[in-house]
Amino acid sequence: MNQPLGLRILSTAQALPARIVPTAEAAALCRVAPEVALKRTGVHERRWLSGDETALTLGTQAAREAVAAAGLEVAQIDTLLNASGSQLQPIPDGGALLARELELRGAATYSIHGTCLSFLLALNHAALLIGAGQARHVLIVSSEAGSPGLNFAQPESALLIGDGAAAVVVGPATHDGQGIHAMRVATYPEGADHTRIRGGGSLLTPRNPAAVLEDFTFDMHGLSVLRLASQVVPGFLEGLRAGLSSGLPGIDRVVPHQASAAGLDLMRRYGWPAERIEVTLTRLGNVIAASLPLTLHQALSSGRAGEGDTLLLVGTGAGLIAGGMILRL
Amino acid sequence: MNQPLGLRILSTAQALPARIVPTAEAAALCRVAPEVALKRTGVHERRWLSGDETALTLGTQAAREAVAAAGLEVAQIDTLLNASGSQLQPIPDGGALLARELELRGAATYSIHGTCLSFLLALNHAALLIGAGQARHVLIVSSEAGSPGLNFAQPESALLIGDGAAAVVVGPATHDGQGIHAMRVATYPEGADHTRIRGGGSLLTPRNPAAVLEDFTFDMHGLSVLRLASQVVPGFLEGLRAGLSSGLPGIDRVVPHQASAAGLDLMRRYGWPAERIEVTLTRLGNVIAASLPLTLHQALSSGRAGEGDTLLLVGTGAGLIAGGMILRL
Repeated sequence: MNQPLGLRILSTAQALPARIVPTAEAAALCRVAPEVALKRTGVHERRWLSGDETALTLGTQAAREAVAAAGLEVAQIDTLLNASGSQLQPIPDGGALLARELELRGAATYSIHGTCLSFLLALNHAALLIGAGQARHVLIVSSEAGSPGLNFAQPESALLIGDGAAAVVVGPATHDGQGIHAMRVATYPEGADHTRIRGGGSLLTPRNPAAVLEDFTFDMHGLSVLRLASQVVPGFLEGLRAGLSSGLPGIDRVVPHQASAAGLDLMRRYGWPAERIEVTLTRLGNVIAASLPLTLHQALSSGRAGEGDTLLLVGTGAGLIAGGMILRL
Repeated sequence: MNQPLGLRILSTAQALPARIVPTAEAAALCRVAPEVALKRTGVHERRWLSGDETALTLGTQAAREAVAAAGLEVAQIDTLLNASGSQLQPIPDGGALLARELELRGAATYSIHGTCLSFLLALNHAALLIGAGQARHVLIVSSEAGSPGLNFAQPESALLIGDGAAAVVVGPATHDGQGIHAMRVATYPEGADHTRIRGGGSLLTPRNPAAVLEDFTFDMHGLSVLRLASQVVPGFLEGLRAGLSSGLPGIDRVVPHQASAAGLDLMRRYGWPAERIEVTLTRLGNVIAASLPLTLHQALSSGRAGEGDTLLLVGTGAGLIAGGMILRL
């Protein structure tokens, strides 16, 4: 990057499903002993949709709260970025569906998709739009309903995934140096089959007579993901900022994607102290693309991060894609 | 926008399915008289996938050809943007699947999605990345396999949609003024139900017992789309550049999304001469997000547009989303 890319986080908000699913309950569905389930995943509880809740209702609620918390009216949002790992509907784009619920008319709405890193990519895109004068108030919504796609015969993912939504409103920087100081994304496609939902796109449509219901569920090979991540992430981090694979140079707080307990453990190998790493996995599980903004919301609302602090937003997603951003608040 | 956003188109390429489907054949599937089908859609023929062809094989082929035509090696691509209206697979992102086929490792890969306008949005994003120093050689791939989602009981969309792929490589501008002079996107979500595929996302998963096969097919209400577009597009165009709703100020050539014959006819109402508008609809149909880059490829490879020319890339997509870009080559 030539210079810091100005960006200010104006607000964050979350919307969680009402239903709390303790790990004992999820473990029973997977026919796994509760203590084994807890040990494997590090997840004590997660939220799953119930009743009339959908990724659209949660995303709308989080969006409304974020806009209000930014002191704005919905009509002041010029760009709405849907940054979700799971689609609401194949057509139209989820951005238009969210805009309809929000009664937002005439704004630019579209999606940025990079599975679990969608929010990180959208945040960078928002800063680019603002820097080029193409946007002023950008609303980013990450909303996930992974639970309907769980396969209880595969506890590895079924014990991990939670539902939920987060929304963030961003605008131009108000201080010198506020914004993105480094951004890097890299894909290692030898991991493309390690985490997948095979069916539902054009390669295997729901109308294909060869498709079975299991094709539309999560298929994750955690050990393969972890092995590949261990290999590539240190070099990836050094490319983001020299020294990051053995410490936290210039970083006040780490806001990671909540891939899994093992994924978070990996970070300690880089010499990142546990007390500097924000964690939501224990109470929310892995909420796909919403994990990052939910964890950012927790960091900001708890006061553990605030204006002037430098954050490292970082994670890996299906692909395998690795992403990291150094953001000064 | 503060100033033109530098961007140079280094190459374009296309990959079309081998199977040519004349309108008489598509009309028979829809139980519509061939002459009625032709008159309604303006489509003489379109391509549909056959044999081993998929949106992934076509996208890969177009991408390889575009990279070679740019005089680059695949390893010189630092960013691959998947800009397709139809998903390859829900997880991982299509960018990773394309990167695997291309043996592209370590590049940033992700998707920009705005149904039929995905390419336009990705082209703008590429310029933003390059302008901020985050990328140098960006490969954009739009690949569509709409035919497996056609509903022959609904001739309106079934007669219109074709399959195909296009790829474009872009890099930094080499001349002053080369690049994006204006960019505008606006969504009018009262049209969110006018064009849709209801099933396949989290709102109606393939596993939902209430889902029927028809839910996974195109559902388009062309007249409603057209009515809404007639209302909003003139104002939208004036916001892109004053005078565009009644002429082509400073524009050499129009490269539109090929929504439908009626959609293209609408452009004549704005005083845009037919001979300045590039058309691929007659021989390719509406190829969703690939229509725009396929039409750009035709404009450039035919010599009807070239260096120094100013293009208007414009269209509407499901949402209803309207988008336009003024691009100097």
